[in-house]
Amino acid sequence: MEKPLILVTNDDGIAAPGIRILVDIARAFGEVVVVAPDSPQSGQGHAITIHDPLRLKKVNIFSGVEAWECSGTPVDCVKLAKHVVLKDRPIALCVSGINHGTNASINILYSGTLSAAMEASLEDIKSIGFSLDDFSFDADFKPGIPWVEKIMQFALAQPFEKGNLLNVNIPKLSAAEIRGLRLCRQADARWVENFMEGRDPNGQPYYWLTGEFVNSDQGEDTDIWALRNGYISIVPSMHDLTNYKAMSSLKGLEQL
Amino acid sequence: MEKPLILVTNDDGIAAPGIRILVDIARAFGEVVVVAPDSPQSGQGHAITIHDPLRLKKVNIFSGVEAWECSGTPVDCVKLAKHVVLKDRPIALCVSGINHGTNASINILYSGTLSAAMEASLEDIKSIGFSLDDFSFDADFKPGIPWVEKIMQFALAQPFEKGNLLNVNIPKLSAAEIRGLRLCRQADARWVENFMEGRDPNGQPYYWLTGEFVNSDQGEDTDIWALRNGYISIVPSMHDLTNYKAMSSLKGLEQL
Repeated sequence: MEKPLILVTNDDGIAAPGIRILVDIARAFGEVVVVAPDSPQSGQGHAITIHDPLRLKKVNIFSGVEAWECSGTPVDCVKLAKHVVLKDRPIALCVSGINHGTNASINILYSGTLSAAMEASLEDIKSIGFSLDDFSFDADFKPGIPWVEKIMQFALAQPFEKGNLLNVNIPKLSAAEIRGLRLCRQADARWVENFMEGRDPNGQPYYWLTGEFVNSDQGEDTDIWALRNGYISIVPSMHDLTNYKAMSSLKGLEQL
Repeated sequence: MEKPLILVTNDDGIAAPGIRILVDIARAFGEVVVVAPDSPQSGQGHAITIHDPLRLKKVNIFSGVEAWECSGTPVDCVKLAKHVVLKDRPIALCVSGINHGTNASINILYSGTLSAAMEASLEDIKSIGFSLDDFSFDADFKPGIPWVEKIMQFALAQPFEKGNLLNVNIPKLSAAEIRGLRLCRQADARWVENFMEGRDPNGQPYYWLTGEFVNSDQGEDTDIWALRNGYISIVPSMHDLTNYKAMSSLKGLEQL
């Protein structure tokens, strides 16, 4: 039997420790091809490169695994992987991450890691974004590894619904402290932001984004609740942003 | 009575004709403040600038209207508008566009115009993204103007649900041909893409995104159907990407 083809990407860049962990896990399950950004792309969301050419360079940084670094965004990487690197070969699974830092709640919108997974799901490729709730470069991914393995195995064995993707977030806990997996909805949390204001060497003003993540969603079925209570959160996510519930209250628009 | 404060932004850049139309419409309804990118930002999705400082410059290009150009993405513009320019004054409405080119269906994910509107809705600001199905710089926005006015008036008068935004797309038709407004769901359409491959002056390969938008969603309740049948489409959209329907088929994950 042919081994399933697994595409690995991320947004922290191909040199980040998190993607190395994911490559090492994925190679046990199939043929792995890596296409990832050549530089950090955090916060790139679903950005694509339209007005500029993209570069793609084969690199030898994961022993025995085909890997390419790309000058574009995480979403660009998935598009290039599908059409150029893999020449439309069927991809069994796309995994993105493991992100240094959580992508729970509305961070799915800002995250390049999750947007890459979303892009794969738009192409009807099963996809999973993995993130660890630890922003540091030397974050300890080890306690999450057995769980990432289990989820990947489940995903390869189980048919996903068309266009579905999983947003998986791992709490910063020891192996003994992780209580298991929890299927969740996205918490309705917010960034409370501000800008650091300063003057550059020429005396011109600049503004630098800074903020704090605040969860006022009290639900015990959310990803934030799961993470704060020792669980790995899994949010099945999708690209249909239609607010069906709001339809009836807006019917008046059709009479204008 | 104090005039409502209306924030105007876009992704084609502050010099695009489409935003000028929107500013002219909005000024009849309230106090208008413009914060828009200083360069085209199409395809930026929900990207934000984390690792670099942002610039903000007051410009005098809309007679009698306070306007600022920003070095960042459309989402950066909304954040800077709220916290720096408007110092957290209550914003009655955020309108983004009018985009040169449609943002129907899944283009809501790629679009800077809609992501800016989405960012405002995350802050519980009523918000609307407007797009015209014509990519050209000298697109004719006139036939859509009375409809944009009606929608803006409706939005200011009617309480939206928290976190809701409207994705409005206008077909490229004459005033007589536009049949009215249609409340829709987001069509499940796709980009069928490829890359133009070439060699740069140094002989190095490059890849340039190209693609065709294909709709295989046969529903007559979609935005694509509405546009193709002479209607202005309005999709109420939201930031909760949870796929609730997929929950039951994934329950096995919690037993791993």
